[in-house]
Amino acid sequence: MVDQASGADLAGLSFEALTPTGFLDRAAAVHADRTAVIDGPLRLTYRELHDRCLRQAGALAGLGVAQGDRVAVLAANSPLLLESHFGVLYAGAVLVTLNIRLSAEELRHIVEHSGARLLLFDPEFAELAEAATEALDGVRIVGPEEYERLRAEAAPYRVPVADERALMALNYTSGTTGHPKGVMYHHRGAYLQALAMVGHFRLTPEVVYLWTLPMFHCNGWAFPWAVTAVGGTHVCLRRVEPAQVWPLIVAERVTMLCAAPTVLISLVAAAPAALDGGRVTVAVGGAPPSPTLLRDCARIGFDVTHLYGLTETFGPAAICDWRPEWSALPEEEQSRLRARQGVSNLVSCAMRVLDAKGRDVPRDGQTIGEVALRGNTVMLGYYRDPAATRAAAPDGWLRTGDLGVLHPDGYLELRDRAKDIIISGGENISSIEVEAALASHPAVLEAAVVGVADERWGERPMAFVTLRPGAQATTEELRAHVRARLAAFKAPDRIELGELPKTSSGKIRKVTLKARANGG
Amino acid sequence: MVDQASGADLAGLSFEALTPTGFLDRAAAVHADRTAVIDGPLRLTYRELHDRCLRQAGALAGLGVAQGDRVAVLAANSPLLLESHFGVLYAGAVLVTLNIRLSAEELRHIVEHSGARLLLFDPEFAELAEAATEALDGVRIVGPEEYERLRAEAAPYRVPVADERALMALNYTSGTTGHPKGVMYHHRGAYLQALAMVGHFRLTPEVVYLWTLPMFHCNGWAFPWAVTAVGGTHVCLRRVEPAQVWPLIVAERVTMLCAAPTVLISLVAAAPAALDGGRVTVAVGGAPPSPTLLRDCARIGFDVTHLYGLTETFGPAAICDWRPEWSALPEEEQSRLRARQGVSNLVSCAMRVLDAKGRDVPRDGQTIGEVALRGNTVMLGYYRDPAATRAAAPDGWLRTGDLGVLHPDGYLELRDRAKDIIISGGENISSIEVEAALASHPAVLEAAVVGVADERWGERPMAFVTLRPGAQATTEELRAHVRARLAAFKAPDRIELGELPKTSSGKIRKVTLKARANGG
Repeated sequence: MVDQASGADLAGLSFEALTPTGFLDRAAAVHADRTAVIDGPLRLTYRELHDRCLRQAGALAGLGVAQGDRVAVLAANSPLLLESHFGVLYAGAVLVTLNIRLSAEELRHIVEHSGARLLLFDPEFAELAEAATEALDGVRIVGPEEYERLRAEAAPYRVPVADERALMALNYTSGTTGHPKGVMYHHRGAYLQALAMVGHFRLTPEVVYLWTLPMFHCNGWAFPWAVTAVGGTHVCLRRVEPAQVWPLIVAERVTMLCAAPTVLISLVAAAPAALDGGRVTVAVGGAPPSPTLLRDCARIGFDVTHLYGLTETFGPAAICDWRPEWSALPEEEQSRLRARQGVSNLVSCAMRVLDAKGRDVPRDGQTIGEVALRGNTVMLGYYRDPAATRAAAPDGWLRTGDLGVLHPDGYLELRDRAKDIIISGGENISSIEVEAALASHPAVLEAAVVGVADERWGERPMAFVTLRPGAQATTEELRAHVRARLAAFKAPDRIELGELPKTSSGKIRKVTLKARANGG
Repeated sequence: MVDQASGADLAGLSFEALTPTGFLDRAAAVHADRTAVIDGPLRLTYRELHDRCLRQAGALAGLGVAQGDRVAVLAANSPLLLESHFGVLYAGAVLVTLNIRLSAEELRHIVEHSGARLLLFDPEFAELAEAATEALDGVRIVGPEEYERLRAEAAPYRVPVADERALMALNYTSGTTGHPKGVMYHHRGAYLQALAMVGHFRLTPEVVYLWTLPMFHCNGWAFPWAVTAVGGTHVCLRRVEPAQVWPLIVAERVTMLCAAPTVLISLVAAAPAALDGGRVTVAVGGAPPSPTLLRDCARIGFDVTHLYGLTETFGPAAICDWRPEWSALPEEEQSRLRARQGVSNLVSCAMRVLDAKGRDVPRDGQTIGEVALRGNTVMLGYYRDPAATRAAAPDGWLRTGDLGVLHPDGYLELRDRAKDIIISGGENISSIEVEAALASHPAVLEAAVVGVADERWGERPMAFVTLRPGAQATTEELRAHVRARLAAFKAPDRIELGELPKTSSGKIRKVTLKARANGG
């Protein structure tokens, strides 16, 4: 029992499992009377949130949920989904967050694959919950009224975390191709990722965090736990519509939000003319923000930090950590630097860029390789899919499928998804680069570029562009705009104007566009 | 190998041992060209610091240091001591920091007890290093010239951390009574404590941290690792003399420092008349800052946060986390709130106040109990002293020996060390409270209050007071000042003016004063 040489813990007083529920325990002890949750007129203190979550665990136990069982939740960014990020864990169960934009059929597949036998849902998803589970045996669905009653009647309950690396949540990938895979999260990773977010975004008890990013997406990049760790305030949000968002930002004095660029574009486009000068910290991820978007954000008081990560890495593995000396550079150069993916975050152990033989590429800003990750904030693997796990991490390094370069300063800049790179006449064309060139045109709201099979060149770029409401531009004008900025061979031969198809989590469906471009 | 139910890590990609050397690895990858260390004219980048530390590990291995061996370092806050906080760990060894203010005899005891067979020292401590080790067999001492040569010749080297809870450092308590005990630190605790400091002090790459707090004291409250984690700058400092400190604060644009109140008092007293308005974040700990000191700090642009902890808890276990709403209170009330010990930090799992039967005291701001701690940032125990470990943590909760109350808002306020409380006529008198009352007199620089045996009352308070340079006050005037603020029975019967005796880490030696007061 006592091993002084190795420093074994004689009195057993120096170990507690790392689990994000520890942050709620602390907040309830330390910030009991501070506002934890705002949801319309509803206000919950940390004492109340803590009590609710412990009673949710009691209710789940009463419903027969045992340690390791999966509990699915179909909800927008509501108090139910927030408290499930603690209550399901207190119950010793595994949280399966469901994407509310999926079809009943897609949801059925996920619920079945996860093995969840209980599904909680918010009132607006009653029909969807029914439809998703009616073909499944033994799945119980619990709606808001029953849930509220069960939770109110239940006693506070908790199962201690015996193994901090145990499965804690499943996050199904949005799957731009193929069936979604269940990414396995563990307590330790969630705890550390939350601390990284606290550190990088300087979260304090004063943070008022608006839930524009879906919590069902990578568990909201660990912000359910990070905001709670510091005793900040969560502002719930059911729909990310500018007409809902802006009044909340103003009324609740929001200090921070996270969003994908596509969401940010629509928010910024609808910004009220007169803002009161309060600044908002914005973390953007999911795709690189264009310099144009960054400039627009700066104008309305959004301080943007670019994050990069995957569902497989608890969300943000890298951060474009701002260097003080960059603030003296011209605005255009700042935007270019800010759009890079950056460096590994405080707790992600390593980020490498590997060539085809698994060797590190030089830090020359030119040699393209695949981004590879490992460490405490990487998933355990894909649930019930050892083959996919092995394929994703052939040598213990998770291959992201993202291609990029390392600059001499050590910062990563993505050039493309492996499957989105366009190879034309033997030259690589980065679809991201062409998209950024298009987005710098004042009439362009959003752009996506894909490869089209070409007899002579192998592939040629084609662009799909959405113009800003009321703006006008011809495709010839846009092509000229790109040519003035990039090598001629990178300019898209064809440009189509219109809406862009998107996944349920707001990513542009390049697979669809590629099929359309190639006549599929 | 694959256990989907428990979420076992199929590809082995989601685990890295938590160790503070990981922060230097990150800084070298992410902030390679930023300034890591300033020491007079010397400037080191993170690339250089990383290289030095890996070569230190190589040099140690070359000297025969094996995994688990203890390496003692006798140095002020110099580059040697800073790099030893990484290099000794890279070598797989255990860092034993020595207090430079101890006598050769005291040092000999520590070196012998730790079993260190190698001692590194800075040039100014050559004689002391010789004297401390000459009676010890098989202890090799390595001075600056030999060290620089060995390090320059060595190849970079590292031993992976196999167990994150293994012994990583020994911190010998300053021992106001009895022999110093070797407090055992582990990698995991140091890593988490560093993240807590990053979060609470909002450390960024822009931090310029001045080393006023000795690194040999609780490994500098984890700041060697925390500042490195964010790629900030360490400013070395050999002596904490106002005449050395102020020019550095101005010249290097220092943004943060840590200090005990007694150090802060002397700094503030010597503040230049015209400061440039730059604000400095100051973490104060080791004893409660008086409201007077807090007021003086605010005047010169020092933003003070009060920390509370022990050597046994990697330094700060609690922080007086500031609530935004308090900023609207009158200044005196703010000072009172800021002098409280506060709440458990982001990563310390729990802080309790227990009565004599081990039950939690009510949060009434009145019932005094003993502060008890456990969690990941608590020591493994006392090195080679299982009996002392058991005595300190009889039930898995570390008893701090500090007496305090919990306020209704959950904040801890210490009333006294268990051994410093004065019991007079059955009433408890908090020596801290009487000291604060004395310190609020404009002529008082510092005060210490102890109990004197009294036939009638059991004990009576006696005060020892140092006046500010050039200030005048009679003891009768001081007594009247206390009477105007506290219950009459708390006013000290005797007040003696003069210097206060201090330990090597700057704490007032109350044991000495008590002996003097009682005619010992």
